[in-house]
Amino acid sequence: MQSIHHHEHRHLGWDAATPAAAEVAPGDDVEVVLEDAFGGQLTALAGPEDVLALDLSAANPLTGPIDVMGAAPGDVLAIDLVEVEVGTIGWTALIPGFGLLADEFPDPHVVVSTIGDDVIRFGDIARLPTRPFLGTVGLAPAAPGPHSVIPPRQVGGNLDCRDVRAGARLLLPVEVAGARFSAGDAHGAQGDGEVCGTAIETTARAHVRLSVTGGRPLGAPRLELPAERRASGAEPRTPERTMTMGVGPDLMAGARDATRRMIEVLVDRGVAAPDAYALCSVAGNLRIVEVVDVPNWVVGLELDLGVLV
Amino acid sequence: MQSIHHHEHRHLGWDAATPAAAEVAPGDDVEVVLEDAFGGQLTALAGPEDVLALDLSAANPLTGPIDVMGAAPGDVLAIDLVEVEVGTIGWTALIPGFGLLADEFPDPHVVVSTIGDDVIRFGDIARLPTRPFLGTVGLAPAAPGPHSVIPPRQVGGNLDCRDVRAGARLLLPVEVAGARFSAGDAHGAQGDGEVCGTAIETTARAHVRLSVTGGRPLGAPRLELPAERRASGAEPRTPERTMTMGVGPDLMAGARDATRRMIEVLVDRGVAAPDAYALCSVAGNLRIVEVVDVPNWVVGLELDLGVLV
Repeated sequence: MQSIHHHEHRHLGWDAATPAAAEVAPGDDVEVVLEDAFGGQLTALAGPEDVLALDLSAANPLTGPIDVMGAAPGDVLAIDLVEVEVGTIGWTALIPGFGLLADEFPDPHVVVSTIGDDVIRFGDIARLPTRPFLGTVGLAPAAPGPHSVIPPRQVGGNLDCRDVRAGARLLLPVEVAGARFSAGDAHGAQGDGEVCGTAIETTARAHVRLSVTGGRPLGAPRLELPAERRASGAEPRTPERTMTMGVGPDLMAGARDATRRMIEVLVDRGVAAPDAYALCSVAGNLRIVEVVDVPNWVVGLELDLGVLV
Repeated sequence: MQSIHHHEHRHLGWDAATPAAAEVAPGDDVEVVLEDAFGGQLTALAGPEDVLALDLSAANPLTGPIDVMGAAPGDVLAIDLVEVEVGTIGWTALIPGFGLLADEFPDPHVVVSTIGDDVIRFGDIARLPTRPFLGTVGLAPAAPGPHSVIPPRQVGGNLDCRDVRAGARLLLPVEVAGARFSAGDAHGAQGDGEVCGTAIETTARAHVRLSVTGGRPLGAPRLELPAERRASGAEPRTPERTMTMGVGPDLMAGARDATRRMIEVLVDRGVAAPDAYALCSVAGNLRIVEVVDVPNWVVGLELDLGVLV
């Protein structure tokens, strides 16, 4: 298995012109080693003054890109998250000007967490279940770059979706030859919304499998969700539990897009469109996946397709 | 235990001037018997033409109101959902002009469900877990009425929150003497969002306990969530799992309101505000509770307060 390490293959922002660090065959496994979203600028002793001193132009570094042989625009890249191992220290920062309540919290602040296998000590405030995932998983957009890494896009990126974790399969639309996969921004845990703008930001080593799938072209990321059980490590995927997404600057439009895309999934399985819409209403859950990665928010519609008879 | 039945005590819309059907002492249990949201207009054989023929001015009838002795404006009414028993038939309708994708689904449609103790047969389309709850639980607003029953308000009402179910405690701000509690709009199951505008609409018999609590006045509904286990019947409440809400015509403002209110809950427990905000980011989940009850949507922030050390 190839291992792609941020020490050698690190980039800031998305650009289709960034040369591939490696190439894999479809179905190959690859390991990616990831810096934290602050690019290593914070220590275990970090305080508010260190948040204020952050060089934010270096935020959210990515490891990659990795090309998948034969992947072409219009294809769908399937990213199986086989395993996600995160670091032992995590940072949650209030960054002035960033976050859902930026106007009400103008001052820098940081909570340093200790991340255990099962439990995170969130400062001296709380103990949380460890639930590692990758905040940023994406492909190079076709539009000439560079593009900021902060907003997520149709090709994924900084989705900050807490279910992009071991056992999940993320499906992304390919826009450039080779797909140009990169990842970063690992989190020890996060809630839907990521309201303060950061999660439990940490380093990671992730083992992923990259495959090219056929079928209808995708307009946005789609996630096949992992089983709910263990915090980390490989879990059996339950491909029936699926989340469609709407990515953009308006939550209502995002809710509509996510719903439309789930109706498409159901129609592809033979359900009539009005029945599919009604089923989304009685069995689908709208989640605000992230609402801070300006200017694009992510709304997800989660549905267990296993309910279909 | 008093039983208040829609045959005798039924009203359409909210109006503080509607005379109380009954009065209970704080802490008393009461049974409410509820019509379905279509006011009994649909049969088990309903088709699209019956949806088109619906008299929507009779939609969402309420049973009540019930006064609680001594409840006064500024108090908080705690509504314990002790048991919710729903009917055996349910209707999910696409009503022209109503719902998240109203423009794309202009035609009437209905799916008739059979509701069992554990499983709902959703037409011949799907089999869903039975998860009964009350779509409408509210108090009379102080502003002179009548007010439409469709939009939820700060005093609750048509929240369409799928966790207002057996084992939960809903907290609502009292605006008029006696609180004037009413309920209706029972559902056999629903997802977060209720995207098509209706759930599995059915009749119900609900057993609730009405108490007056002290503490800080509430600006919006708050829910203490039930344990996740059985579909129906009384379950042990886990008061640590709490959802604050933002109710209004903008999802972003709703997300901000729900987050602010959870920060208040945490500050009341001794957490510093910046730490509370950061905790909401790493452990709180933003849910789109309903996005169809024009013009007011409900966004919830769910957090397990049991994580606090």
